[in-house]
Amino acid sequence: MSARQYAALPDPYAMHLGGTLRGARVAFETWGTLAPAKDNAILVFTGLSPSAHAARSAADPSPGWWDAMIGPGLALDTDRWFVIVVNSLGSCFGSTGPASIDPATGERYRLDFPELAIEDIAEGGHAVLRSLGIERADTILGPSLGGMVVLAFAQRHPGVARRLVSVSGSLGAAPFAVALRSVQREAILRDPAWRGGQYDPDAPPRTGLALARKLGTITYRSAAEWQQRFGRDRIQDTARTPNSFAPEFQIEGYLEAQAAKFVDAFDANCYLYLSRAMDRFDLAPLPSRCVERALVIGVEADILFPLDGQRAIEMALQDAGAATRLVALPSIEGHDAFLVDIPRFSAAIGAFLREGAAP
Amino acid sequence: MSARQYAALPDPYAMHLGGTLRGARVAFETWGTLAPAKDNAILVFTGLSPSAHAARSAADPSPGWWDAMIGPGLALDTDRWFVIVVNSLGSCFGSTGPASIDPATGERYRLDFPELAIEDIAEGGHAVLRSLGIERADTILGPSLGGMVVLAFAQRHPGVARRLVSVSGSLGAAPFAVALRSVQREAILRDPAWRGGQYDPDAPPRTGLALARKLGTITYRSAAEWQQRFGRDRIQDTARTPNSFAPEFQIEGYLEAQAAKFVDAFDANCYLYLSRAMDRFDLAPLPSRCVERALVIGVEADILFPLDGQRAIEMALQDAGAATRLVALPSIEGHDAFLVDIPRFSAAIGAFLREGAAP
Repeated sequence: MSARQYAALPDPYAMHLGGTLRGARVAFETWGTLAPAKDNAILVFTGLSPSAHAARSAADPSPGWWDAMIGPGLALDTDRWFVIVVNSLGSCFGSTGPASIDPATGERYRLDFPELAIEDIAEGGHAVLRSLGIERADTILGPSLGGMVVLAFAQRHPGVARRLVSVSGSLGAAPFAVALRSVQREAILRDPAWRGGQYDPDAPPRTGLALARKLGTITYRSAAEWQQRFGRDRIQDTARTPNSFAPEFQIEGYLEAQAAKFVDAFDANCYLYLSRAMDRFDLAPLPSRCVERALVIGVEADILFPLDGQRAIEMALQDAGAATRLVALPSIEGHDAFLVDIPRFSAAIGAFLREGAAP
Repeated sequence: MSARQYAALPDPYAMHLGGTLRGARVAFETWGTLAPAKDNAILVFTGLSPSAHAARSAADPSPGWWDAMIGPGLALDTDRWFVIVVNSLGSCFGSTGPASIDPATGERYRLDFPELAIEDIAEGGHAVLRSLGIERADTILGPSLGGMVVLAFAQRHPGVARRLVSVSGSLGAAPFAVALRSVQREAILRDPAWRGGQYDPDAPPRTGLALARKLGTITYRSAAEWQQRFGRDRIQDTARTPNSFAPEFQIEGYLEAQAAKFVDAFDANCYLYLSRAMDRFDLAPLPSRCVERALVIGVEADILFPLDGQRAIEMALQDAGAATRLVALPSIEGHDAFLVDIPRFSAAIGAFLREGAAP
């Protein structure tokens, strides 16, 4: 069962960094009911890898990645709000991306997909609003990569969202994050199974993707959380071969399990495109009053999108005339805290959505 | 020209985790003059990858990795001290390791090298002292992996060193560091050129080693330093191929240059053994009064060997009755600061060596 819907991009769609797409579309899902005045939409962009399936629904009861945040009485209260979650342009869960068929050739785009920018992902969300007849969203919200996207959206479409919520986002990645993503991409690029991007979809560069995901998992959390959860606990394995260099610590087993799930779910070329788009993003100057109010959430233990970057977002929004609040959360989970520390994120986002809501 | 000397290990040498070595030796270099009473030796262990060539000398004027710290009038003042630097057992710069010839077979050990422990590296240093007729070192000193080794040395040979200096060391690695090293090793293990450890020395697993080194370089420094040095500066390259995923940011070019140097200098199997030895190290209880005085240095921005771990070392040494001082340095360079922030490290180590020196 699927709750997936689709919105068409302008055809042809001119990409931000050059090149065009024909017949491009983005996938999305919705929860709640669009008000007759069409004034209660919350448009959500995702991090690098999730699909639009952020929460269960009657049409798709499988678990979503933000089940604890989207629903009746939850922070994104579907009794009040019409919540829309968009699969990023360039991703592989229904939206057009490198793994999609190029209508001009009948083959997958692979590396013939035009260069992707965060701004293009924002345009994908804008196309969804248009397709639903929504002229103005109440709120645009995005974590991680999505935190970059909401800023690009506000920059390109001033006034099309009344409010903005940036969760662990960035005006432009720090070199530490660029360096880590560069190594993640190289692990894929150097995997012989990548085959210059021409891999068989049934034989993807699993080794490279797994390494990339392991490194991601390490940096999405915090050293303090690993210490608390795993310490130096060993894997119980009496059959270990000497000098096999097999995993010995529980943290290693955890990374392996996380990577195994990812390798079967995400396309390698899409990963490369989305990862590089994050590196390249540099927010253009925000037009005055592009949004009315903004909430910027950061997490103290986040090493990828650190707090000083959150303060920079706050200042950019204030300079653009938005009433902006910065919340720095002490969640131990680091960059991934928005997926885990639901009590703190519910409180911060829920309060913002209630307080500033139109009467 | 070489200043390299060698000391034999006991033959056979029984490894800490089982197995034996025949005809094993460790390489070392010295600076300064051993006093007639043989009471002025400082025994230095290294981090994971350096050789024993820590400083220039008449016998080998090539640059050393701690030139600014070892010499007349420097922190390790060779007018006063006889400084010995040891290449770790298991390494590939003269000491016996996986890249050495196994006398039993006439072939390289490769993965037939017995499992290596930090304690074995400490024994290598002890063999050097014995070979020089030194019954008691004034000071044992080690950064990073070497900071683990000095603790193992004090634990196994109480009283054989009067003083101990631990620089960014550990009683046992945190799971965050274990996770990162695990990914580094996997990058090597998964490189087809590794060939199950049976690679031709002229065709090593360069790709895996380069990835491992890049990840190392990222984590040996700090996000703040990368920001200061590189920011979001781009590589000037007008000939860039679209979608080649080639490096675009200066931080990426820097990582590439660092990795290229390393790949030609370090043996992959040795890297695997030394890296895993760091993961496995858990210091056994320190005997009472194993050293008289100790200096524990940590760096605030070190994400691999963080400050709470330095406090744990301080407490372990205090519990063993050593007069111990902890110094937390604000160096921006993170774990690698001992190689870069010479003023702060000179001051801290120089003062400790002068103050507590025998009359």
